[in-house]
Amino acid sequence: MALEIKHLLGLKDVSKSDITQILDAADKFYEVLNRENKTVPTLRGKTVVNLFYENSTRTRISFEMAEKRLSANPLNFSASGSSVSKGETLRDTVQNIEAMKIDMIVVRHGSAGVPKFLTECTGATIINAGDGYHEHPTQALLDMMTIRQKLGRLEGLKVAIVGDILHSRVARSNAWGMTTMGMDVTCCAPTTLLPQHTESLGVKVTTKLDEAISDADVVMLLRPQLERQTHGLFPSVREYRTYYGLDRDKMKLMRNDALIMHPGPINRGVELEAEAADCPQSVILDQVTNGVAARMAVLYLLGGGEHE
Amino acid sequence: MALEIKHLLGLKDVSKSDITQILDAADKFYEVLNRENKTVPTLRGKTVVNLFYENSTRTRISFEMAEKRLSANPLNFSASGSSVSKGETLRDTVQNIEAMKIDMIVVRHGSAGVPKFLTECTGATIINAGDGYHEHPTQALLDMMTIRQKLGRLEGLKVAIVGDILHSRVARSNAWGMTTMGMDVTCCAPTTLLPQHTESLGVKVTTKLDEAISDADVVMLLRPQLERQTHGLFPSVREYRTYYGLDRDKMKLMRNDALIMHPGPINRGVELEAEAADCPQSVILDQVTNGVAARMAVLYLLGGGEHE
Amino acid sequence: MALEIKHLLGLKDVSKSDITQILDAADKFYEVLNRENKTVPTLRGKTVVNLFYENSTRTRISFEMAEKRLSANPLNFSASGSSVSKGETLRDTVQNIEAMKIDMIVVRHGSAGVPKFLTECTGATIINAGDGYHEHPTQALLDMMTIRQKLGRLEGLKVAIVGDILHSRVARSNAWGMTTMGMDVTCCAPTTLLPQHTESLGVKVTTKLDEAISDADVVMLLRPQLERQTHGLFPSVREYRTYYGLDRDKMKLMRNDALIMHPGPINRGVELEAEAADCPQSVILDQVTNGVAARMAVLYLLGGGEHE
Repeated sequence: MALEIKHLLGLKDVSKSDITQILDAADKFYEVLNRENKTVPTLRGKTVVNLFYENSTRTRISFEMAEKRLSANPLNFSASGSSVSKGETLRDTVQNIEAMKIDMIVVRHGSAGVPKFLTECTGATIINAGDGYHEHPTQALLDMMTIRQKLGRLEGLKVAIVGDILHSRVARSNAWGMTTMGMDVTCCAPTTLLPQHTESLGVKVTTKLDEAISDADVVMLLRPQLERQTHGLFPSVREYRTYYGLDRDKMKLMRNDALIMHPGPINRGVELEAEAADCPQSVILDQVTNGVAARMAVLYLLGGGEHE
Repeated sequence: MALEIKHLLGLKDVSKSDITQILDAADKFYEVLNRENKTVPTLRGKTVVNLFYENSTRTRISFEMAEKRLSANPLNFSASGSSVSKGETLRDTVQNIEAMKIDMIVVRHGSAGVPKFLTECTGATIINAGDGYHEHPTQALLDMMTIRQKLGRLEGLKVAIVGDILHSRVARSNAWGMTTMGMDVTCCAPTTLLPQHTESLGVKVTTKLDEAISDADVVMLLRPQLERQTHGLFPSVREYRTYYGLDRDKMKLMRNDALIMHPGPINRGVELEAEAADCPQSVILDQVTNGVAARMAVLYLLGGGEHE
Repeated sequence: MALEIKHLLGLKDVSKSDITQILDAADKFYEVLNRENKTVPTLRGKTVVNLFYENSTRTRISFEMAEKRLSANPLNFSASGSSVSKGETLRDTVQNIEAMKIDMIVVRHGSAGVPKFLTECTGATIINAGDGYHEHPTQALLDMMTIRQKLGRLEGLKVAIVGDILHSRVARSNAWGMTTMGMDVTCCAPTTLLPQHTESLGVKVTTKLDEAISDADVVMLLRPQLERQTHGLFPSVREYRTYYGLDRDKMKLMRNDALIMHPGPINRGVELEAEAADCPQSVILDQVTNGVAARMAVLYLLGGGEHE
């Protein structure tokens, strides 16, 4: 069955049925990743351009691995050393890439809205790999995939997202997606790191960690970006760690069976300590594995690959 | 039938018969690019090294896409971070690459003559992807392919090349190739941007735009390199645009059916305005598509791939 | 027959039997490199991550070519622009990469011991592509492969290694491997470029070039790193060249049939002159070719690929 969406720009407007279909396909690709031969011929002959205007190793490699395992041809285009510096417009760059007869574009850009803009000036299928502070939908999909895999369902579960909500496209995509899936989301951060109208995301908001995590099924920590300290938004690392860093003591406030998640990369000793990152309830590395499977699912369902 | 040339160093000494054969093969690969599966097994098992000593995204990606669609193994070697900085000679670098048993080298270098030098110190097939102000032969081939595709022939057509002729390897390759194919080429630029002995290229020269474009079948705009302004070669952007930038008014000087071409990347608002870049007579994006097909043809004919 | 080792961290603890098995496999892959189609399906579907924390073109391309010729999926991860700069630990980076379900990691790092550390925190097979001043085992393997190919045996042969022994992981790996294979190794350098306890490597040591090379079957030159001149370790280039640079005069001290080797890149005019680099006894380019074959052998034997 085809998805209702033609592009993956964000989870704000993606239906429960589409999200479910992506998660179901991701579960199947997860099986493929545990085979000896992890490659399937699904997208053979298709070209996918990874258009990364922001530095990223983790997400780019995850997408590239997903593409190769679907037998697509990945082409990496990074901003440095490109025609960007020669004064070409984004529209012209993308229309040029499309004119080379490519099938899909995976795009990461520092400005919110760029993936949507690309759908307006090309005929290629667009997948958002992170745009400004807007959305990072494949991250939220892999997060929900991981929760469903571990806890058996999404509906009705309580999730606490702790950290720099204001600047986090991960928090935003999860807020949209999880509420669509019937989950109960609480965002927790110091006031300076909370957006003004968080409620419009359909989530609860608190500045108190114990309130957020005490009955959560899932606690997701976000990386505070330390450079924001100098902008007055961010308390000292020591203060942040004292109030929001997940350590052995604060883990006692959580339920024993709650999952600990993090989109990575981790700052050990800031938002979480080794005892939290490496404990049995931590599913951080499962998230990474599932990231490849979830991206394979999105590429497959939007790429119109032949069915196996 | 094999080509007379063994390497593609420039179009200066390439025969009409060889150019025709490349353009014919390019037309066939163009059909392949419009299939669902755009990959053919022609160069399976062959290794092509893309040796780029100058920054380039557009040309490198176009070659890499052509190589992958022929099922070759591309290996990208860029100057930054290479043994170049450790004092190794170009000859040693290339002989080392060749010793790894590669089949072809696609080379871009800031110095004219490097591709020819490489033929003298390696046994690999060399394809010039642009050398200094000398030649950029695959660009001229894709330009001629595009003209033939749109206008049905080359012989007898009038082409105006407008812009920084002095520093343009694109103009130079087109001048050689187009005159070989029996086309009538006029180069148009301010005096400071014209080479001293342009006539030796077998083309006409003028500083007056209306003279160049009024009866042309094709008007090809080149990107003036703005950094040359500081060297006194380049008038102000405003003056350049006034006299040589293609806008709605100057388009009225052209024939209605004349093609508008540009090798990219475009400086909108300098050498051409949106109304010229995006009008129905503009074939700029066709040039990009044809670039992949023309490069596939060159790689195929020089690479000795098995026939399909 | 499987190797005794599960990872290739260095040659210090690799048995004569394992080294022999790798060299035998390398000879077979050498045959493959001389075929028209140089690709074998041995590692199809396996993913190999090239994790390079130090700049390297030569070694990275050689590994990447070996991986592609075994039909593996290479993924390049370089330190610049990676999560390294976001404060992630090496352990977390590698566990993340492993979580994406990769099979092998080829690692180069400026710190000795990193490859061993990786075996402790991941389940992937680790191949050392150079770690600090510690080891560079695939280089020593390709060196021994080349000697055996040219001289028919290793046992009993005399090898002189000349140059910056102190900082050379190549010298160190060759010292371990060659003594294991029953070769007689002499290291030759100015006192400042010799390690304190060179004898512990099981080799002879001298500061006199004529003593080292006069009855050697093989003379291997190393690149002195010129930046060490400023640290007082390195005499002037002129003095180094006078005493240790291999030129026509010093070649007269060597046996006529002795091989001249160098791991590259070469500084012509410093450690060796053109008459030495390009003479019939020089096997420097054979080393490069054999590098691909030796790396294919290591990847194949450790990668558990299906037998052809």
